[in-house]
Amino acid sequence: MRIAVIKGDGVGPEIMGATLSLLERYIGADFIEIKAGKSYFIEEGKPIEDNAIEKIRECDSLLKGPVATPTKGPSYPSVNTLLRREFKLYANVRPFRSYEGISIRRIDTILVRENLECLYYGWEVEDEDRAIAMRVITKRGAERISEFAFNLAKREGRGRVTAIHKRNILKRTDGLFLDAFYRVASKFDLRADDEIVDAAGYKLVKLDNAFDVMLTPNLYGDILSDVAAGVVGSIGLCGSAQIGEDFAAFEPIHGTGEDIAGKGVANPIGMIIAASMMLDWLWERGRSPKRGEKIREAVDSVIRDRILTPDLGGDFRTEQVVEKIVDRLRD
Amino acid sequence: MRIAVIKGDGVGPEIMGATLSLLERYIGADFIEIKAGKSYFIEEGKPIEDNAIEKIRECDSLLKGPVATPTKGPSYPSVNTLLRREFKLYANVRPFRSYEGISIRRIDTILVRENLECLYYGWEVEDEDRAIAMRVITKRGAERISEFAFNLAKREGRGRVTAIHKRNILKRTDGLFLDAFYRVASKFDLRADDEIVDAAGYKLVKLDNAFDVMLTPNLYGDILSDVAAGVVGSIGLCGSAQIGEDFAAFEPIHGTGEDIAGKGVANPIGMIIAASMMLDWLWERGRSPKRGEKIREAVDSVIRDRILTPDLGGDFRTEQVVEKIVDRLRD
Ligand SMILES: CC(C)[C@H](C(=O)O)[C@@H](O)C(=O)O
Ligand SMILES: CC(C)[C@H](C(=O)O)[C@@H](O)C(=O)O
Repeated sequence: MRIAVIKGDGVGPEIMGATLSLLERYIGADFIEIKAGKSYFIEEGKPIEDNAIEKIRECDSLLKGPVATPTKGPSYPSVNTLLRREFKLYANVRPFRSYEGISIRRIDTILVRENLECLYYGWEVEDEDRAIAMRVITKRGAERISEFAFNLAKREGRGRVTAIHKRNILKRTDGLFLDAFYRVASKFDLRADDEIVDAAGYKLVKLDNAFDVMLTPNLYGDILSDVAAGVVGSIGLCGSAQIGEDFAAFEPIHGTGEDIAGKGVANPIGMIIAASMMLDWLWERGRSPKRGEKIREAVDSVIRDRILTPDLGGDFRTEQVVEKIVDRLRD
Repeated sequence: MRIAVIKGDGVGPEIMGATLSLLERYIGADFIEIKAGKSYFIEEGKPIEDNAIEKIRECDSLLKGPVATPTKGPSYPSVNTLLRREFKLYANVRPFRSYEGISIRRIDTILVRENLECLYYGWEVEDEDRAIAMRVITKRGAERISEFAFNLAKREGRGRVTAIHKRNILKRTDGLFLDAFYRVASKFDLRADDEIVDAAGYKLVKLDNAFDVMLTPNLYGDILSDVAAGVVGSIGLCGSAQIGEDFAAFEPIHGTGEDIAGKGVANPIGMIIAASMMLDWLWERGRSPKRGEKIREAVDSVIRDRILTPDLGGDFRTEQVVEKIVDRLRD
């Protein structure tokens, strides 16, 4: 197994180091480091090393830490969106599960976010007086992500898929998205319904178990997944998969956490959950033994025993949390 | 004082009836009913009565219930966006305040949402394979709403204004918005900072008192205000003002609540808070005695005494809650 690794910025190297040490001991793999991100840009003047795409393509998958995308200062192309486009990672899968005593309410939702279209397409123009961005939704893209969501729901034994939209305002773009969703839904024996994006944000916070599988266009999914992470209790607990036809990348959903970077207290669990999702994906393709669920069980047991980093009110360090997880995996 | 009134759909007539009965007894005013909304459309085949705009313009302000905007079935122009555009209601002001024992965490935030631009502009095109919506941000619009937010912050004794954006992806549109924000900020003696929209959604849920005044482009404000309402504990508690140069409209931020409509159990407080904001606005223009704060104090005291509708776990009816508020106002 060859895993490409981008450590990322901020807390990235710490949580990646901890996660690789777990993977090395638990499963063994070759890790191929790819340099990228803000720190790399500052040193080398480019956001990602030359031939990175080719090097990654030679691996079985990519494990990635959080990479800073510039909001000010010298601008460079976002490594996140670059990788999504190069590998056509059209589905961003983000599971949110509550933990007793930590979460604001009960949640057990898989959010499936379309990952290549919408306002992320890169079409913006401006003149003196105004700027215009284009929100693009294609029929093929909407159908493909709908198929993905229903297949995932079926595979995971889920009963209901809810499409998120703002069709009351965006009649054409979200209309096209919803129409594709219901066309695809008719081929599956699962409950399909829809919810307006603002109401979905409200329900995530207000109700227990508001949603089962959520399917969203790109930007709504970006925002709602952070809201769902708030409900879980810490974004540091949440991992994600970005999946294409023949390649996939796995990362925590949190950012670079510059304020706590280098202190050894970042929560490694989002990264470890991402790694567990990677093992699931590799296993489905016959490239890894079945180990994802075991890792998540070990994570659960460590959280149950309140071995927590400061974002969750604990005083354990990154390394200590990972060592405890490794211990449970040995049992 | 002449107040134009749109009762709205679903729970609209109930909560409006209760609110008008309070206003009548507490302050006195002429109410001019304007027919509009889904129920009106079904009867009359038009979303709003003829000459509505002229009739409303002859009043001092508009008090409005929730009006359904169609997501499916026969489509008609949204009354909400029609009114916003006709009266150039460029600022949507939504205060969120927590109540002990009800709210998920402490919050005391005023969200100021740009109300006329962004994806609400109405520019969408489509062909067989794709649909495109245009997100428009103008320099003048961004400056005007920034001025509004800082002036409001100053008037309300707030210390900090945070602009919400996704500049890391939308470099031009949100770049223009943020640049305008910081240009305007330099003229005020208040703290100004910014936050990425997804992180803002997370912080609202995860942290106490994450924001003071929030300034948002249209769609982000739409979504984040529902998230903030979830943190408050019920969207039924939240009112809003939509303000233009010379006119303003006031409404609860919740929808039509079709599932509970006609049962007499809808929470009237969002509508009453909206009415209290209307009295503030009329008072600032010398058209009403100062009564807004008194109404909010009576609301607080009723909530403290747990006189609550079912959305908050109580078993009081709409009318009963309003009568209790009227009693407190008499004290
Ligand atoms: C960093 C940024 C470009 C990215 C996004 O908006 O997709 C992030 O917020 C995410 O959710 O993965
Ligand atoms: C009904 C709809 C058009 C409206 C909006 O999106 O602005 C509503 O959600 C709101 O927040 O006032």
